[in-house]
Amino acid sequence: LQPPLNQSLLGKPLVEELQTPALILDLELFEKNLSEMAQHCQKHGIALRPHTKTHKSVAIAKLQLAAGAVGICCAKLGEAEIMGTAGIDSILLTSPVVAKAGMRRLMQLNEIVEELMVVVDDRANAEALNELARTSGAVVRIVLDLDPGLHRTGVLPGDSALALARFIHDADGLEFAGLQSYAGHLMHVESYAERRLKSHAVMDMLAEFQHRLGSMNIPCPLVTGGGTGTYDIDAERGVLTELQAGSYLFMDRQYNEVLDPGDHSLGFDTSLFVQMTVISAGSPGLATTDAGFKCFATDADSPLLVGTDIAARYFFFGDEQGGLSFDKQETIEIGSTLRAITPHCDPTFNLFDYVHAIRGDTLEAIWTIDARGCVA
Amino acid sequence: LQPPLNQSLLGKPLVEELQTPALILDLELFEKNLSEMAQHCQKHGIALRPHTKTHKSVAIAKLQLAAGAVGICCAKLGEAEIMGTAGIDSILLTSPVVAKAGMRRLMQLNEIVEELMVVVDDRANAEALNELARTSGAVVRIVLDLDPGLHRTGVLPGDSALALARFIHDADGLEFAGLQSYAGHLMHVESYAERRLKSHAVMDMLAEFQHRLGSMNIPCPLVTGGGTGTYDIDAERGVLTELQAGSYLFMDRQYNEVLDPGDHSLGFDTSLFVQMTVISAGSPGLATTDAGFKCFATDADSPLLVGTDIAARYFFFGDEQGGLSFDKQETIEIGSTLRAITPHCDPTFNLFDYVHAIRGDTLEAIWTIDARGCVA
Repeated sequence: LQPPLNQSLLGKPLVEELQTPALILDLELFEKNLSEMAQHCQKHGIALRPHTKTHKSVAIAKLQLAAGAVGICCAKLGEAEIMGTAGIDSILLTSPVVAKAGMRRLMQLNEIVEELMVVVDDRANAEALNELARTSGAVVRIVLDLDPGLHRTGVLPGDSALALARFIHDADGLEFAGLQSYAGHLMHVESYAERRLKSHAVMDMLAEFQHRLGSMNIPCPLVTGGGTGTYDIDAERGVLTELQAGSYLFMDRQYNEVLDPGDHSLGFDTSLFVQMTVISAGSPGLATTDAGFKCFATDADSPLLVGTDIAARYFFFGDEQGGLSFDKQETIEIGSTLRAITPHCDPTFNLFDYVHAIRGDTLEAIWTIDARGCVA
Repeated sequence: LQPPLNQSLLGKPLVEELQTPALILDLELFEKNLSEMAQHCQKHGIALRPHTKTHKSVAIAKLQLAAGAVGICCAKLGEAEIMGTAGIDSILLTSPVVAKAGMRRLMQLNEIVEELMVVVDDRANAEALNELARTSGAVVRIVLDLDPGLHRTGVLPGDSALALARFIHDADGLEFAGLQSYAGHLMHVESYAERRLKSHAVMDMLAEFQHRLGSMNIPCPLVTGGGTGTYDIDAERGVLTELQAGSYLFMDRQYNEVLDPGDHSLGFDTSLFVQMTVISAGSPGLATTDAGFKCFATDADSPLLVGTDIAARYFFFGDEQGGLSFDKQETIEIGSTLRAITPHCDPTFNLFDYVHAIRGDTLEAIWTIDARGCVA
């Protein structure tokens, strides 16, 4: 990693001296979100296993654990290796590990991490992991991934899923740890009522499957799933034992726009921003900033400017730059700085090596995004 | 940077053992592109100053220099610092550097790099750079950025642009090195005839401006601009002295779709791919790979699968995964590997730490993407 350009600003008011584009975290709001989710889970009797694919930062994961999380989720082996090496002792890998080289890495990680779990949705994969585990004399904890209708990963909750659970439970090298079902397609359903109805249907599917496991004498201590978009629904059926939310710490334009602000507004505020600098302003009603496709994930909407004196709209202006469009009567000075809410926090974190944690206007810490780019 | 997972495969046939997702460069096609552009520029009497924002890799920049490039372009200071520290001695910074801390970094870089040039499009910026240069006893080489109608950066080619040129030319701390005009909005114009007409108009604007500079006794040795989309047009008017193309080494879906394959097809082949692995295949006609938003820039189209046995279409399936849709009669095995052409090569390079250079099926080198994430 390159040295953090802004390290000399630690403890000082930032504003103009910050080298931009930079990822900014407002600690006051971040800590409020951290505590809000911890309290919510405690109140509703559900454990929190936050998904660290969102931030990929050991420092932030450790703050989540300190606030009561029982462990973490990782999406990729590379992330889990970083988190495990940093001493985090309970990790759930939420995607199947199927390649031979990947399964070998998994076995090595299993020796380091006290409680490593990995999801499986395929018999051949379970057999291969069992072989590797038996050869090395270890046991691999398996979470059976059930498809909630998204069809991304997971086996449909029918007889073959039960047979797979049976195999995992009975295999010498494997331990049947429980169930995962992540309904990613429900996180951004706009209507709360519809989100709730569909989430409950997933929970009912899980409960029914768990019941069938029980009648086969397969204990299922863990049921993991849920996310930021359904966090206030996920515990209602009493089925999930663990909540996998990640984005709640930061929020983004995508989540802000989905979650209705009425009775069912989430208790989370946007704490994450990209700070940028105006580098050109040659045409009326138009200015150019130093943050483009390489500073914001572009899979969702556009970045949303906050705290500007005049009404301006950000638009993507290529790889390296952003455009600002505003009333032609107004002017935006070259050199001025702006902040924008990210369209989608997870893949935006993955673009930066560091996040700048500020309290008010003071740069309090620069946290490394340790697992950035660890996609394999 | 994390150690390259695939290092143990160097010199070996890759295929299944490669940890994925991984960025793959086909050296045979890459070298063909490298040589094609070098020959083109030599034949048409235009210097090549490739834009390294595309790949951000010192190893690749040095190959371009070895093939005859006169220097390189960088989009951001952070990139130029990496390239300059690595010994590259002629660098043009194609975006204005306006922040105080940035201008201080520029002065430091100016001491290291034999020929550093930076674009300017604003009088106050030119004055500030002049002040800094005079204080430190150095001279900063300035390229005046002219707006070709894109309105992203650059000053419109009128009297105030001439006055700015005059100021730069006369200022003790500055050297007027020449003109830049990058018509980014013309690179992807589908019709060759329209692309050519509009490019020529930009060239004529530059020639006219250069002529006016001449009548003010301001020598203008350098005129830099152009890109992959117009590389076969850029030299025609004899105005540009340097071509800034970058994507020609790799190509991507966006460029492949724009450039008509008739008489005016480019001599470049797609050499860049993302290799991925199928991790789940639970539903008929559907499979899931390990490469999603974090492995492909999403500002353009979808990744395009190549070399698959069956007709399958890639679709984005979230941050961590891609979907494959295909005929329900067909099957794609879990664990099988696939390659896809990237939608947009530049921001995709920026997602990875390494690019895997292969010759045939053998992994010949793993090149570091040194300036990845250096957006500031």
